[in-house]
Amino acid sequence: MIVQQELNDFINTNKELIQHELRHHLHQLDVPERLKASMIYSIQAGGKRLRPVLFMASYNAYNHDLNKALSPAVALEMIHTYSLIHDDLPAMDDDDLRRGQPTNHKKYDEATAILAGDALLTFSFELIINDPHLTDQQKIHLVQLLSEASGPKGMVAGQILDIEAEKKAVSLEELETIHTLKTGELFRYAIRSGAYLGEATHEQIVHLDEFAHYLGLIFQVQDDILDVTGEPGKTGKPVGSDEANEKNTYVKLLGLEGAIEKKKYYVKKANKALYDANAESSYLMSLADYFSSRDH
Amino acid sequence: MIVQQELNDFINTNKELIQHELRHHLHQLDVPERLKASMIYSIQAGGKRLRPVLFMASYNAYNHDLNKALSPAVALEMIHTYSLIHDDLPAMDDDDLRRGQPTNHKKYDEATAILAGDALLTFSFELIINDPHLTDQQKIHLVQLLSEASGPKGMVAGQILDIEAEKKAVSLEELETIHTLKTGELFRYAIRSGAYLGEATHEQIVHLDEFAHYLGLIFQVQDDILDVTGEPGKTGKPVGSDEANEKNTYVKLLGLEGAIEKKKYYVKKANKALYDANAESSYLMSLADYFSSRDH
Repeated sequence: MIVQQELNDFINTNKELIQHELRHHLHQLDVPERLKASMIYSIQAGGKRLRPVLFMASYNAYNHDLNKALSPAVALEMIHTYSLIHDDLPAMDDDDLRRGQPTNHKKYDEATAILAGDALLTFSFELIINDPHLTDQQKIHLVQLLSEASGPKGMVAGQILDIEAEKKAVSLEELETIHTLKTGELFRYAIRSGAYLGEATHEQIVHLDEFAHYLGLIFQVQDDILDVTGEPGKTGKPVGSDEANEKNTYVKLLGLEGAIEKKKYYVKKANKALYDANAESSYLMSLADYFSSRDH
Repeated sequence: MIVQQELNDFINTNKELIQHELRHHLHQLDVPERLKASMIYSIQAGGKRLRPVLFMASYNAYNHDLNKALSPAVALEMIHTYSLIHDDLPAMDDDDLRRGQPTNHKKYDEATAILAGDALLTFSFELIINDPHLTDQQKIHLVQLLSEASGPKGMVAGQILDIEAEKKAVSLEELETIHTLKTGELFRYAIRSGAYLGEATHEQIVHLDEFAHYLGLIFQVQDDILDVTGEPGKTGKPVGSDEANEKNTYVKLLGLEGAIEKKKYYVKKANKALYDANAESSYLMSLADYFSSRDH
């Protein structure tokens, strides 16, 4: 069993590493100043780097040579950042702040924010396809997985369904579909592609895929629970903002107790899948616990 | 020498083929209804399909087996369409009409238009990487070229420079840089990747690259000339709209006569490059003429 300190060290070390790589790739870009500044602004706004950390944890369960893992982890964070920039736009969630800082279109302007998002999305594929540490086969498989996870069948589908759902009542099943696509697909990509690059077997990857599915749901149900029980100083948003915005949440559909029960069920399923993938002693197990008990 | 009728047949046959393939790939997409409808709407809005036709002409100069060329041609048109959807947004050019039809965000809404653009961009890479007709090497090289041409070093750079240039006077050199990036990079991709897939030699591709550079400039200078001399019934916009919008154009910088002279110079350079690439008897030569004398 990995103790808390070990997990924290793993998360912090990898966060540092990823931030270093993100800076490295963006600062050396020879592109118009304003575009570059705007891309760097949102990438540096920070955040938990959950997706690349998950990717590294999954890779690390099977392999310890870091070289292969860096560009794919960075590409993943770029895709996530692009989705946040576009999500924050006035036409979408219309958010002025993200993590206490002005959103990209507030700091720059809408046109720049749209283009910075487009640029990060496109550049993430360029990064993978040009990575000298990857074999041809690996490049191809990563671009396959990433384009599917982030495109119209994946994350973008989740975003449009989420927007549509704001205007109507949805069932628990529909809610799960939205989260699975909007958040879960990138988590799934992180875990599958990490294990694939780490040279896990096909069967192990199938089980990890199931783990990833439940991890995404754990993440979301905890988000909904925190909206009701969290401390604003830690979550960064006022208590009850989902209810005020009439958002469809687990708590709204199942009540707080019901949501907590649902989370426990997901944790059990996630742990079972990890055992089946022979990854029960990896950081993934502790990350699932971390996801389910995080306070921000 | 290819006669006009032959060129028209080539253009029409390939347009048909590309439209058929675009429909095929989009209609079979299993994605949320509204997203799919919005993607199909802009793709079907038509247009000259210049980029994929150029791609086919370049491929056709060296190879006649169509199978390999279809997905890459379709991916290219998807990237072009995504760029138009985002370009038309209120925060960018704020256009209500494109080719006489409501723009995507007018027909649907801004959020849907942003997501449809994101989806088309991402899906274009998915299409190439999953094409069973391409070798691994070809998939990798096409994704490399396409991500570079359409990303922050290419088309997106051109778009941000274009926006910045609206607010100031620019030199002829700066104007050329903007066009080379904004329009030229995708033309260049079309021609380079077509020749590459058709198995042209490295040296031939270097010459074609030069051809593509001038072709992009011919396209743009003719656009500017048409704004002054064109018939609104054919160009689809009022005479002098560039001047009214204080756009930086060749005509503004060089006068009409100067712009026509510049175009002749570009045509000469383009033709020379085609001879050097042993592609002087291909459709590319007639397409360059077509670009330089088009009336819409």
